[in-house]
Amino acid sequence: MSPTGLLYPKMTVVGAGLIGGSVILAARAHGVVGEITIADASEAHRARALEIGLADHVTGDLAEAVRDADLVVIATPVLSIGEVAAAVAPHLKAGATLTDVGSTKATIAEAFRSPALAKVFPIPGHPIAGTEQSGPDAGFAELFEGRWTILTPLADREDEAYAAAVAKLSAFWRSFGAQVELMEEKHHDLVLAVVSHLPHLIAYTIVGSAADLENVTENEVIKYSASGFRDFTRIAASDPTMWRDIFVANKDAVLEMLGRFTEDLQAMSRAIRWGDADTLHAHFTRTRAIRRGIVAAGQESAEPNFGRDRGKH
Amino acid sequence: MSPTGLLYPKMTVVGAGLIGGSVILAARAHGVVGEITIADASEAHRARALEIGLADHVTGDLAEAVRDADLVVIATPVLSIGEVAAAVAPHLKAGATLTDVGSTKATIAEAFRSPALAKVFPIPGHPIAGTEQSGPDAGFAELFEGRWTILTPLADREDEAYAAAVAKLSAFWRSFGAQVELMEEKHHDLVLAVVSHLPHLIAYTIVGSAADLENVTENEVIKYSASGFRDFTRIAASDPTMWRDIFVANKDAVLEMLGRFTEDLQAMSRAIRWGDADTLHAHFTRTRAIRRGIVAAGQESAEPNFGRDRGKH
Repeated sequence: MSPTGLLYPKMTVVGAGLIGGSVILAARAHGVVGEITIADASEAHRARALEIGLADHVTGDLAEAVRDADLVVIATPVLSIGEVAAAVAPHLKAGATLTDVGSTKATIAEAFRSPALAKVFPIPGHPIAGTEQSGPDAGFAELFEGRWTILTPLADREDEAYAAAVAKLSAFWRSFGAQVELMEEKHHDLVLAVVSHLPHLIAYTIVGSAADLENVTENEVIKYSASGFRDFTRIAASDPTMWRDIFVANKDAVLEMLGRFTEDLQAMSRAIRWGDADTLHAHFTRTRAIRRGIVAAGQESAEPNFGRDRGKH
Repeated sequence: MSPTGLLYPKMTVVGAGLIGGSVILAARAHGVVGEITIADASEAHRARALEIGLADHVTGDLAEAVRDADLVVIATPVLSIGEVAAAVAPHLKAGATLTDVGSTKATIAEAFRSPALAKVFPIPGHPIAGTEQSGPDAGFAELFEGRWTILTPLADREDEAYAAAVAKLSAFWRSFGAQVELMEEKHHDLVLAVVSHLPHLIAYTIVGSAADLENVTENEVIKYSASGFRDFTRIAASDPTMWRDIFVANKDAVLEMLGRFTEDLQAMSRAIRWGDADTLHAHFTRTRAIRRGIVAAGQESAEPNFGRDRGKH
């Protein structure tokens, strides 16, 4: 039981997947919610959620699920969150908090600005955590420990009650061991485009390019992958549906970042073509600073195997 | 002591760095060489090599160092290997084996084809292993265990004696626990361009692009780097001088691979711009096969932390 105490007497989670399930388990472990309801469109998911006792109530009826809830967490795929918000809007209790856990925020903030949600506190959110698992069995209470959760409160909701709802939702995430950051939704999407979406797009692309070569076999790529390629294949094995949704929803920020990257890559290409050793050396030296920052910030400690896995060439 | 037995009564290593030092320690540990000589141009490296007893003889005089050697291993930076080969050529014993450990092979094979080397057995080589350390203290005997070493024998040297020299050098590397593969030098450079050089170039570029953004701070990039970016920063912290040399020496293969990648990235960009969800999904699904191949081949086992580090978004 956490020192936070009960924050929401009744919580409803829409979508009993990895994140939804983990939110429930963490909230229960830390005693910050009372009664828990799950709404899920999949009959199989509902049956399984019942079987493992994930919630007090499990239903396929969205309206019924959210009626008395103090907190509603939409934990469905990114492209469906706006729709779910519109569907539950007429049934929400006045003064309830509505949030989500989607990986992009601008399109969701847009949906959350609907006049139909004026009587509740809609606060878009994004816990930066996950595993490759999915479904009702995938969740675990510790998923958010030591991770960041970004909330993107709506700028046009400046009243004190809204600010109090944001503070309470922040306390909810903090009780799970997460660190909370508030951010404007467009900025969130830009930051995530850099640190997550563009890296994933690049990894997916290079792994595809390697698979298409006619003069290098897939077997050779696999055999010698320890020399750099392997890290990309790990990222490129992420869930295709989730990532498709992210690139559709965060198109503008991803294309902007991709434009920057492509320009820079062309400059490197030119330096290689002209044998401009000084430009290459200067660039390769400069990028070490960010790595040092990451290690210094404890985002990554010197793993025991670090030395041996790096610098292979 | 390995069951291989003594292969080369006298071995000379040029360059007392990480790889040169590791070759010496592994060769001694497995009893495959007798007398060991180091040649190094750096007075500090020579002093240190003497201090830690890395070899039986340590000298700055290349001619003297290689005079009686049965095996000469050039372990200097890629761009200097051709020069060293030319410098030692007149002093080599007839029938000696000359090899190197550089990360690219076509330019080195070219140098090894010199008529001045006709009386020896020049066999370009590349152990795919390394750490971020350098200098005479960096080496360790186990560096090559479970790694690949690629040899690129010269196609124009088809005599039996040359084949026997290649077989002996293969046994030398195998005695260290390495797996040996023979390959044509241009093919080596193409394979390494895919699995190593292009991934490094891309990682260096994206880390540089992220550092240059005016609307996302370096602190934000560091804070949220766990969501994909971090893997790239690790690669982009590799030794700048080594990588500059690699891109200069392997220009053609890198530019060819970069061209393929850029085309594929443009196709992805177009799919995102037009919201072509099906193309994105199909591509993201396809790339999982290579990952499965890598895990199946034991190139990477399911690390304990694997699940939690993957799929963050």
